[in-house]
Amino acid sequence: MLDVQKQSDERNIEIKKVGVKNVQYPIVVLDKKNHTQHTVANINMYADLPHNFKGTHMSRLIEVVNEYYVDISMKNFMNMLDKIRSSMKARKAYVEVSFPYFIEKEAPVSGMKSMMEYNCQYLGEVDDYKRKFYVGIKVPISTLCPCSREISDRGAHNQRGIVGVKLLFGSFFWIEDIIDLIEDSASSEVFTLLKREDEKYITERAYDRPRFVEDVVREVTQRLAQIGIFPWFSVEAENFESIHNHSAYAYVEWGNKET
Amino acid sequence: MLDVQKQSDERNIEIKKVGVKNVQYPIVVLDKKNHTQHTVANINMYADLPHNFKGTHMSRLIEVVNEYYVDISMKNFMNMLDKIRSSMKARKAYVEVSFPYFIEKEAPVSGMKSMMEYNCQYLGEVDDYKRKFYVGIKVPISTLCPCSREISDRGAHNQRGIVGVKLLFGSFFWIEDIIDLIEDSASSEVFTLLKREDEKYITERAYDRPRFVEDVVREVTQRLAQIGIFPWFSVEAENFESIHNHSAYAYVEWGNKET
Amino acid sequence: MLDVQKQSDERNIEIKKVGVKNVQYPIVVLDKKNHTQHTVANINMYADLPHNFKGTHMSRLIEVVNEYYVDISMKNFMNMLDKIRSSMKARKAYVEVSFPYFIEKEAPVSGMKSMMEYNCQYLGEVDDYKRKFYVGIKVPISTLCPCSREISDRGAHNQRGIVGVKLLFGSFFWIEDIIDLIEDSASSEVFTLLKREDEKYITERAYDRPRFVEDVVREVTQRLAQIGIFPWFSVEAENFESIHNHSAYAYVEWGNKET
Amino acid sequence: MLDVQKQSDERNIEIKKVGVKNVQYPIVVLDKKNHTQHTVANINMYADLPHNFKGTHMSRLIEVVNEYYVDISMKNFMNMLDKIRSSMKARKAYVEVSFPYFIEKEAPVSGMKSMMEYNCQYLGEVDDYKRKFYVGIKVPISTLCPCSREISDRGAHNQRGIVGVKLLFGSFFWIEDIIDLIEDSASSEVFTLLKREDEKYITERAYDRPRFVEDVVREVTQRLAQIGIFPWFSVEAENFESIHNHSAYAYVEWGNKET
Repeated sequence: MLDVQKQSDERNIEIKKVGVKNVQYPIVVLDKKNHTQHTVANINMYADLPHNFKGTHMSRLIEVVNEYYVDISMKNFMNMLDKIRSSMKARKAYVEVSFPYFIEKEAPVSGMKSMMEYNCQYLGEVDDYKRKFYVGIKVPISTLCPCSREISDRGAHNQRGIVGVKLLFGSFFWIEDIIDLIEDSASSEVFTLLKREDEKYITERAYDRPRFVEDVVREVTQRLAQIGIFPWFSVEAENFESIHNHSAYAYVEWGNKET
Repeated sequence: MLDVQKQSDERNIEIKKVGVKNVQYPIVVLDKKNHTQHTVANINMYADLPHNFKGTHMSRLIEVVNEYYVDISMKNFMNMLDKIRSSMKARKAYVEVSFPYFIEKEAPVSGMKSMMEYNCQYLGEVDDYKRKFYVGIKVPISTLCPCSREISDRGAHNQRGIVGVKLLFGSFFWIEDIIDLIEDSASSEVFTLLKREDEKYITERAYDRPRFVEDVVREVTQRLAQIGIFPWFSVEAENFESIHNHSAYAYVEWGNKET
Repeated sequence: MLDVQKQSDERNIEIKKVGVKNVQYPIVVLDKKNHTQHTVANINMYADLPHNFKGTHMSRLIEVVNEYYVDISMKNFMNMLDKIRSSMKARKAYVEVSFPYFIEKEAPVSGMKSMMEYNCQYLGEVDDYKRKFYVGIKVPISTLCPCSREISDRGAHNQRGIVGVKLLFGSFFWIEDIIDLIEDSASSEVFTLLKREDEKYITERAYDRPRFVEDVVREVTQRLAQIGIFPWFSVEAENFESIHNHSAYAYVEWGNKET
Repeated sequence: MLDVQKQSDERNIEIKKVGVKNVQYPIVVLDKKNHTQHTVANINMYADLPHNFKGTHMSRLIEVVNEYYVDISMKNFMNMLDKIRSSMKARKAYVEVSFPYFIEKEAPVSGMKSMMEYNCQYLGEVDDYKRKFYVGIKVPISTLCPCSREISDRGAHNQRGIVGVKLLFGSFFWIEDIIDLIEDSASSEVFTLLKREDEKYITERAYDRPRFVEDVVREVTQRLAQIGIFPWFSVEAENFESIHNHSAYAYVEWGNKET
């Protein structure tokens, strides 16, 4: 059977990334409390393609997923990229794995437990000269507007927001610890289950801790920098404003990607 | 050229709806202030198909869109469904047209003007015995929690929400008037452009008008019923809770669809 | 602490559904081959609210999720609704649970294995007089156009499509069996991993089995009716047409919901 | 009234981007055939914020939108960014405007006319040292697999795909011309309205012009490079594979961003 992909191409154009996108797969990741967690992932996998080849063999990328999905831990993730390079005979490999991650949280006063979802992402990029591994984490939060509180005789507008960090991997860390740090940088964290005593606590605490999106990204940046293990990271905060139908947004970058 | 769709089918199964979905088209609708408004629509169009025909001629549905898109007013909308019935030789026709509709609003204190978007929908269903035309309108709002305000020593959690109404058409009305009614039923309306004096006004007004989703749907229901021109309608309210990562939701139906 | 929700309401408007929407939770469901499967769910839970109460206690809905998420099987699902009724002191309860479900499939010629995702849904509605439980299943498929094949000298346009069924529960069945039935009703099933010999097989098989969306919904309807355990069901098919930027769509209902 | 945003901040962290996101606004753009086109936009606008200021004045960004939305042409777009810089007293300004753009197309044989939607984007970035303006255009296409055609005795799998280009602006061009170029690089273009004679033509033409995603990005790259007015551009192609439930994807970059 003819291998059309292997034929030569005359157009002299190298393809930077070619592969599969939006592959849905069940995966297993590390969990600080329960050792492992079963979740579901959306996966993109790419390799480069030299100018002289007509096409790539995409089924090999799925074969790599098949081999690695039972252990998508930080430690194992970059092995997956090496495997792509060897299997595709490519110089570069790129993988993006996005998944919901669940943590059990306790309500602040009642102590009642429930699960909270955090969307996470592993992003890797490997070639002969560099190996980059980024971890993305999205954390829903609550923010109360400092300006509204200052100028109003009563109340202050507040809203749900979301903080997203993208961390260049230096050494192993727990996603749970980063989530704690982010939640503590907001006016309040959010919960799935709250009783009335918790609602009172959260309302008052948020009122006492007003934050612009600007404050949130700076607070998170300061604390992430203090950990000292990330060569580079970005922090973004988006408020789903309760007085507008659009979002307020802020974005910071820190460190050096090319270290 | 053989007409495959016209061939007969032996399976004896009538198809309730068959047609085209997610057709994107520019449309022109009526505007209370500016006479007409150019916007873009997502359109679904279906007809029924008797058990003895193999297929329908979907291109005819697009020909109908082509004829009507320059005037998708309430008055003209149902003509489009009649045209589908005659063109498809069908007993029933269904059309769903969804579009963003823009209205210029003034900020409450500064008077500054900006445009607000409201997602609207025209839904029609016609056969030999009935003609139903529904108008859907979605209005972003702000709600402040009565419980949080009552139990907390300071502040009260509030958030963006959205109210959706679906109105069975009785006689002509302006979308603008329904939007006004809904915005006035919330803790506060939301705006695209607000200066600080407006923010103070809105913050305090929302604090003075706490509303659960239950309150919002009841308030809107009461006022819509008072207008007296809708044989049937539904009202739903969804709060993007600022203390949770999920929504609070309420839904009411009123009147009689079969009148 | 005052219970604001428990206060009375004078507007005399009963709320049909009130509750929580878009709750993300990890769940465990039954799996024909592996006994159980860990997945993630999007959950909506509602109860009715009599006209004389101001608000509902939404946190109790999350407490019910907390109790049931480790076993969302068909057998256990309706118990969750009974629990909501008793816990909320409501006459009616509604639950919608949507989740991706994974099945390992073998490629038709090479026999290579990979996981396929199917989006499923459990929908329940309970009051004093009726208990309705619906199972929704979405199956990606491939369809090849009979008209295009018939009129063209070479080739035939084909595309990915999706079939959705909603089945009124009568007695226990396996989701896996319904998926098989649907996949066999299309021009071809789709796979995550295919080698060249599989691609040849699928291409030729689809060419030999042309199907309109009308054919697909009729074929699925006929086979579901033959199983004889569903009092009512609906079948829809949507083609992401390769010659258009919109979809072709067909929808059938069968049986009697009120049995 | 206190200006909280103007207060000083001690954390010594510069914010790269701060502003508003997901602002929905009606806009007017240039149209090659009809001079102007009314459409609707999703707008993000950001400025930088020096480390010593607590917050930014986001309402000023909406005031800029208000001034420019009636003429978002390529010629006028960058003026909007200059206005942001002066109005916010910022060194940098960023604007992203995304909008559907409609063009009337003729079916290839019947000549029947209908409207096609193309999602476009204007992206601008300005500071003291550089002015970058990118135009993004997304074009739905149809692709037929060369491998499937080669190895199969009959038929060939094909599917809808989408090509996205991002062009660094050098000198004025018409969006219409780029869309033509892209549509001609696919196995076939797609249409909103086709009669049977058109369907035959398109089916056969696609069969005669098989293309991998790799072929499509190379073909588009080659032609865009030949135009010679873009200092840099990227081309991506995504196939919504008809034999898989995931996409095939390819991405190329060309030229030099820093010229």
